[in-house]
Amino acid sequence: MAVRSPDEFRESLRDNRRVFLYGDLVEDVTTHPILKISTETAAGDFVLTHSTEPTVRDLFVAPHPETGEPISRYFLPPHTPEDLEKRLEMIGQSIRLTGGLPFGKDVGTDAMYAIMTTAQQMGKPEYLERAQSYLEHLRKNDLNLCAAITDVKGDRGKPPAQQTHPDYYLHVVDQNKDGIIVRGAKIHITGAPVANDILVLPTRQMRENEGEYSVAFAIPANTKGITMVCRPSRGERGPSEFPTALPVRGLVEAMIIFDDVLIPWDRVFMCGEWPYSMLLAYTFATYHRFTGVSYKIPAVEILAGCAVAMAEMNGLERAGHIRAKLVDIAAYVETLKALATAALKSPVMHGDLAVPNPLITNMAKLHFASHYHEIIKLVQDISGGIISTMPTYQDWQNEELHKQLEHYLGGSPRYTAEQRLRMVALTHRMVASAESAHMEVITVHGEGSMEAQRMMIHAEAPFGEYRDLALAAAGIAPHG
Amino acid sequence: MAVRSPDEFRESLRDNRRVFLYGDLVEDVTTHPILKISTETAAGDFVLTHSTEPTVRDLFVAPHPETGEPISRYFLPPHTPEDLEKRLEMIGQSIRLTGGLPFGKDVGTDAMYAIMTTAQQMGKPEYLERAQSYLEHLRKNDLNLCAAITDVKGDRGKPPAQQTHPDYYLHVVDQNKDGIIVRGAKIHITGAPVANDILVLPTRQMRENEGEYSVAFAIPANTKGITMVCRPSRGERGPSEFPTALPVRGLVEAMIIFDDVLIPWDRVFMCGEWPYSMLLAYTFATYHRFTGVSYKIPAVEILAGCAVAMAEMNGLERAGHIRAKLVDIAAYVETLKALATAALKSPVMHGDLAVPNPLITNMAKLHFASHYHEIIKLVQDISGGIISTMPTYQDWQNEELHKQLEHYLGGSPRYTAEQRLRMVALTHRMVASAESAHMEVITVHGEGSMEAQRMMIHAEAPFGEYRDLALAAAGIAPHG
Amino acid sequence: MAVRSPDEFRESLRDNRRVFLYGDLVEDVTTHPILKISTETAAGDFVLTHSTEPTVRDLFVAPHPETGEPISRYFLPPHTPEDLEKRLEMIGQSIRLTGGLPFGKDVGTDAMYAIMTTAQQMGKPEYLERAQSYLEHLRKNDLNLCAAITDVKGDRGKPPAQQTHPDYYLHVVDQNKDGIIVRGAKIHITGAPVANDILVLPTRQMRENEGEYSVAFAIPANTKGITMVCRPSRGERGPSEFPTALPVRGLVEAMIIFDDVLIPWDRVFMCGEWPYSMLLAYTFATYHRFTGVSYKIPAVEILAGCAVAMAEMNGLERAGHIRAKLVDIAAYVETLKALATAALKSPVMHGDLAVPNPLITNMAKLHFASHYHEIIKLVQDISGGIISTMPTYQDWQNEELHKQLEHYLGGSPRYTAEQRLRMVALTHRMVASAESAHMEVITVHGEGSMEAQRMMIHAEAPFGEYRDLALAAAGIAPHG
Amino acid sequence: MAVRSPDEFRESLRDNRRVFLYGDLVEDVTTHPILKISTETAAGDFVLTHSTEPTVRDLFVAPHPETGEPISRYFLPPHTPEDLEKRLEMIGQSIRLTGGLPFGKDVGTDAMYAIMTTAQQMGKPEYLERAQSYLEHLRKNDLNLCAAITDVKGDRGKPPAQQTHPDYYLHVVDQNKDGIIVRGAKIHITGAPVANDILVLPTRQMRENEGEYSVAFAIPANTKGITMVCRPSRGERGPSEFPTALPVRGLVEAMIIFDDVLIPWDRVFMCGEWPYSMLLAYTFATYHRFTGVSYKIPAVEILAGCAVAMAEMNGLERAGHIRAKLVDIAAYVETLKALATAALKSPVMHGDLAVPNPLITNMAKLHFASHYHEIIKLVQDISGGIISTMPTYQDWQNEELHKQLEHYLGGSPRYTAEQRLRMVALTHRMVASAESAHMEVITVHGEGSMEAQRMMIHAEAPFGEYRDLALAAAGIAPHG
Repeated sequence: MAVRSPDEFRESLRDNRRVFLYGDLVEDVTTHPILKISTETAAGDFVLTHSTEPTVRDLFVAPHPETGEPISRYFLPPHTPEDLEKRLEMIGQSIRLTGGLPFGKDVGTDAMYAIMTTAQQMGKPEYLERAQSYLEHLRKNDLNLCAAITDVKGDRGKPPAQQTHPDYYLHVVDQNKDGIIVRGAKIHITGAPVANDILVLPTRQMRENEGEYSVAFAIPANTKGITMVCRPSRGERGPSEFPTALPVRGLVEAMIIFDDVLIPWDRVFMCGEWPYSMLLAYTFATYHRFTGVSYKIPAVEILAGCAVAMAEMNGLERAGHIRAKLVDIAAYVETLKALATAALKSPVMHGDLAVPNPLITNMAKLHFASHYHEIIKLVQDISGGIISTMPTYQDWQNEELHKQLEHYLGGSPRYTAEQRLRMVALTHRMVASAESAHMEVITVHGEGSMEAQRMMIHAEAPFGEYRDLALAAAGIAPHG
Repeated sequence: MAVRSPDEFRESLRDNRRVFLYGDLVEDVTTHPILKISTETAAGDFVLTHSTEPTVRDLFVAPHPETGEPISRYFLPPHTPEDLEKRLEMIGQSIRLTGGLPFGKDVGTDAMYAIMTTAQQMGKPEYLERAQSYLEHLRKNDLNLCAAITDVKGDRGKPPAQQTHPDYYLHVVDQNKDGIIVRGAKIHITGAPVANDILVLPTRQMRENEGEYSVAFAIPANTKGITMVCRPSRGERGPSEFPTALPVRGLVEAMIIFDDVLIPWDRVFMCGEWPYSMLLAYTFATYHRFTGVSYKIPAVEILAGCAVAMAEMNGLERAGHIRAKLVDIAAYVETLKALATAALKSPVMHGDLAVPNPLITNMAKLHFASHYHEIIKLVQDISGGIISTMPTYQDWQNEELHKQLEHYLGGSPRYTAEQRLRMVALTHRMVASAESAHMEVITVHGEGSMEAQRMMIHAEAPFGEYRDLALAAAGIAPHG
Repeated sequence: MAVRSPDEFRESLRDNRRVFLYGDLVEDVTTHPILKISTETAAGDFVLTHSTEPTVRDLFVAPHPETGEPISRYFLPPHTPEDLEKRLEMIGQSIRLTGGLPFGKDVGTDAMYAIMTTAQQMGKPEYLERAQSYLEHLRKNDLNLCAAITDVKGDRGKPPAQQTHPDYYLHVVDQNKDGIIVRGAKIHITGAPVANDILVLPTRQMRENEGEYSVAFAIPANTKGITMVCRPSRGERGPSEFPTALPVRGLVEAMIIFDDVLIPWDRVFMCGEWPYSMLLAYTFATYHRFTGVSYKIPAVEILAGCAVAMAEMNGLERAGHIRAKLVDIAAYVETLKALATAALKSPVMHGDLAVPNPLITNMAKLHFASHYHEIIKLVQDISGGIISTMPTYQDWQNEELHKQLEHYLGGSPRYTAEQRLRMVALTHRMVASAESAHMEVITVHGEGSMEAQRMMIHAEAPFGEYRDLALAAAGIAPHG
Repeated sequence: MAVRSPDEFRESLRDNRRVFLYGDLVEDVTTHPILKISTETAAGDFVLTHSTEPTVRDLFVAPHPETGEPISRYFLPPHTPEDLEKRLEMIGQSIRLTGGLPFGKDVGTDAMYAIMTTAQQMGKPEYLERAQSYLEHLRKNDLNLCAAITDVKGDRGKPPAQQTHPDYYLHVVDQNKDGIIVRGAKIHITGAPVANDILVLPTRQMRENEGEYSVAFAIPANTKGITMVCRPSRGERGPSEFPTALPVRGLVEAMIIFDDVLIPWDRVFMCGEWPYSMLLAYTFATYHRFTGVSYKIPAVEILAGCAVAMAEMNGLERAGHIRAKLVDIAAYVETLKALATAALKSPVMHGDLAVPNPLITNMAKLHFASHYHEIIKLVQDISGGIISTMPTYQDWQNEELHKQLEHYLGGSPRYTAEQRLRMVALTHRMVASAESAHMEVITVHGEGSMEAQRMMIHAEAPFGEYRDLALAAAGIAPHG
């Protein structure tokens, strides 16, 4: 069963996991009216690996490097720029074909390959063996994953050990022959309620006295002691929303509480080796920011499309200030794409693992996040106030009102009033809704805050080379 | 009954007005589960004029200039900077005291005083008489108003007369001894379903062949032929939301359809005088942008407060980059306040009517709108991803989860976890919710788009003076 | 001689001061080909106080508050918003009437009133007596001043006492019955070579172990032990430059070296009282940033004028993108003016001294500095490459070339080719020359860097009020 | 003599060309005190092709594709991404190795390959033959070139034919069996006085009635009727400047007047074919903006280096706000490099000619130009006011002053005071001098204004694809 069917995936989530939503324990995440949206969003990945369209299947399924058995391509570690390009392509196509991001194996393997990169360096062969064995387990069972990184952190001005209690960062509280016992809570964990396994990594570089916090492992989501508290990004399409081409897709965020959970030794990938915490956190961040950029590209292309379509539908596509704004939007989108390409074309190699260029990847993520709100403003500006004040789909369906709305809400004669209202409705979702506001926050904080990207750019930028060029130009001998 | 009680106001809305929401005709806007929020928001104005607190009452109630009878201060035309300052203060205090903006008399008198300004210029004494008589009517009946300006516009690339049908801009289709008959639809009309009277103005400068579109009037909201299609900005507080100090307040947007509505002559303030359409639209815009700035000030002060409080609660208020961001936020807020002050201190006089300085008012509105999204980004950035992923109030109330959430979601020890979560919830509303996304759009398009402000700044800025200074400095004799 | 003539001023500079330029000791700053420009720029102030035009004289000369004798208005401490407005007006008119900024008494009294403000707080009556006595000395002798604030600072990452030698900040090295002996060097001292007296203040807040660095005093510029090393901002107009309406004006920057200079006790205004160093530095900064804003206003008005004139001369004033850029420039200029007005209208009182509102003053300076380069870019963009590649005045005067240049370098027929070239030449000076590049640096660093303004905005912004508004809105009791 | 020596090049410029500077006819551009700097800057190219260093020579010299004879690599038309990468590398290395940009063959072949691209499309075999024959002429004689594009334009609001005289755009005034006679003036022509041949192209798309303006040709610079009026970007290093590692390099701008110049038919590449004017102008712009980006990269790397070095020398490299600014600078530089790489990796093919991707090339140029002033501001900010107020080299050499300056102008102990002053001097040149101001203007207008880039981005961006994605997402069938 190396490539599971969507139904096999759904079935696997009925495993007595402890998931709360709106204060209630959820009986079945696959049928719950809100969480089933997340289930189906994640199921999209399995739909694609089972596609009967050869080009789709060939993109998402690849032969196991040793056995040749079909496995998810995500489970092939990237060794070349082409491999990284495939990941970018898979993520983009997932969204285009299913209407949502089946966030799971992408982020999961971001974590997995960071673990493997680090394991190569740690000088303890058991870690690399465990990681390889776990990768085989993933391939064989075609597991959906989530990556639990961000701790709840308490007072951000203080390190883990100086908090008012020791649990603000997940830590090892005990260990025995079977494994380690961990306690703590991870927050902002996208897709957790529909993941089979959870991969846990430290949220940042740990210091000498923070060995108990230097811990990484994998664990099934239904393990005893694990509780998830969810917050959905959206529910089913309501009756007031205009229908769109594809079904509603959307992820769910969860806080995962680990209440003295036993992690078997063969799933432990770091336990106390604090000097390697930075490499692990840093490598995950790089892989995952590249993943982030990959799924932002189709998102901002549609955003740009809303602006173009609304400009046309309003009859304004030739107005000078509208053209200028469209150019700004296009430059934003295409710069993102160019940076993504540049990042994958010049990877950094860790052993045989290709990591997207950290400097360019972080620049791409920072580009995306730091200008996103400005782009949203431009789309709102171009589209007009109607994206916030438009009549509902129920008004449109009301016979009495329908004729009036059709009479009054037309725009450019190149489109019908209904086409215009459908585009208004899509644009509303993209830039004027609870979802769009949520997306702004995700843009700022997802894959690490902009400050985190600045920190990595500071670490990676060739400041020494710049300086030496200037010293040489000034006729000053360079310093050591 | 020159100052009505909240109950008198509520009663006055039960007048068989034709209001649709979600495709259904609304029986009573004062009891409808969603529209009653708008009713109560508007009722806030009447609560304040009936306040037993003397400083409040003295701010919102003033003696009639001739009779001395108590009337709403909004119904006193501004003659001095101090009068304008009172309007700014009334709007600010309304929001601070009632938790919402009782949008109605402010926007209504923005329109009223623009009508009076224009009437003085039109050379037809009947217009001024009608305006004054209508002002007395407002004073006597203490009416709540809305201002209907924006037409649906059809193809924005074409003027009213070149559209595929003549109704994309509201126009006069007939007239008789009783009055004029108008047809068209106005859109984005805030508070319309809870207004007693509607004031209608042209949305822009009209040209010679657009006399039928050069029309301004007042009309009761329940007049035959008027239909409103609404879209609420929000509903009642749901069980997943943390309670806040004040009840939920919120406005409603409406499209108003005028299906051959008879307007009696004594309520007609412009009918064909297209050369004055620009003065009318322009003066309304100036008054109303000043009103807009007035209610943004308290809004952005609270926004800034969320950022400060979240920084403290996260223990980050001393971090360098957080300080820098707080400084940016403060500079944004205080520049807005300084510009508002500068605008009211140097009004332009039209007869005895003081209009806030058009150049500075437009700059203030543009300042507000053009940097708002950047400020939202900073608040999201400072606050952390938790504003989008936080547990719901139901989770907090669940006994099983409560203790865990309290244990894990604390921040700086200066605040409790509950205080932090309440602030997270407020910040969520302000920057990460359907409301906040709606507010972004309102910021861009409310009181006219940024392009409209740029147009007025272009018209009002002293470019000739600048040029002459440069010509003089260059030793070039100035041109005529 | 309470109001000196320009000649008296010139004469007073022939006092054996020790001034170096280009490695040479300058014999006479009033006749030196470069420094005489600075002399004449400073002399502008004396030209204005001797103006035969009553409105000019009345602006720059005022009666001594006790004796009624005419004195420079700069020597009247500001007590009201109107007094601050006069200072703003004097600075603006100086530039408009003389073509340059006679920087001297403005910055000098910025320092003087900061000294007086601080003296009131220090609890030692002798300081206030000395300050008042020195103010009378200034009034009586009508002295031109400079203010020496910025120390050379050495390693900016370390405080004064931890530097590799103790002299990186000016300090007291000894004292005796006659006075104190100081050593150190002050840098970026505008106008020093043409000042009669130098006022020295600490550059920043000093700490407990930095008493020797907490020193303020006044001293004649020709005192033994004082050496100035100058760098001119520009020389005389060269033959390749098109003439302009007014003679060349320009300031000079100096490094002032104090090589064990004796300061008599009656000119010492602080000596060891480190807890007051911050108030002194802070108050000077506020006064001086207001002065800075005052002289930037006419500067940016002319800058805006160059943009308008070049747009017209190029025939582009109606192009959409040019209009948009002109609006941005106007908003920049007018926001600066509005902030200056707002700052002076709400001063902070220290005793009877009115200090421009520190929050708004710093915002105004930060507004000016942080957007200046963007405005320069817009002016360059609007004006065209010709501002950098234009023929010289010598080419224009060459008979053979003249006719061709006239034929080819015309623009809009509303102006002649010569008018256009004169405006190109002015614009070149303003945005494409050594002077303009110097002005960019002055804009960034003059009156303190942008970081200094951010620090003061952080100190002055009502963050506590913002936070309490948010706490109240969230239903959280405020904290102490 | 397929690869000329520097001396052969110098000799070739002594050809009686008619060059004016400061109103005087220049006798010999190779010995004139100012123009010899331009000569030597251009000679740098010949120094490199004669380098004894194999890696250098192999980069700049390549075998003739047919004869195998060594020729300048610039004269090999680019067919592949690797060929474009070579051009980028040549330009970068030129600057790094000679200290200046030997602007000539790069811009000349930008024009040449645009001519060849267009010739392929025009359907007249003679044009392609002439172009190929001229390319052989260039290869054989190893000519230095300039490209004359920008017309003087007169009133920019009007097209060529509606100007007050017909000569504001260069045009054909007559023709005969020998060739065509042209009249007009081209402006902003970098390096013209030291070019052997001038390539003339239309400055923009021409319309149907503008056939006489649709003209392209090559002509020796000393041809009868050609006059150049120059403006140097700088002169020799003066005694007040600190010496730097490399000799002073700098280009010169010229206006070229064509006073009824005869162009032989075999050098005419367009004459009346207005429909192809756009392709020609557009292709040149793309090639040349790529060249522009290529030489900006080393320039901004040194700029970044000044910021890093000054931060270190001031002891501030660890300050939070300095780090943040350095990150902004690095992101600017590295984004430029990433965009350049992306542009060359996805060229557009015209026949066998590879044109750098027009969309990305224009984005790269716009990125460079639109943020340059902001970067200059950051470098000024980081470096401190001393870059504008520093003592001169003469002061430093004055024995009396030297010791004091050394004592007072040190910074971080990691560098000497002299090293710091040398870096201050370099930074002064880069961001606070006549040169730096000139560079700002060049950045804005060189290779076409930002508006020109926006126009091309508007033409090239995949707006239709964006729109169709949005239509599909909204469930709307796409339009034709």
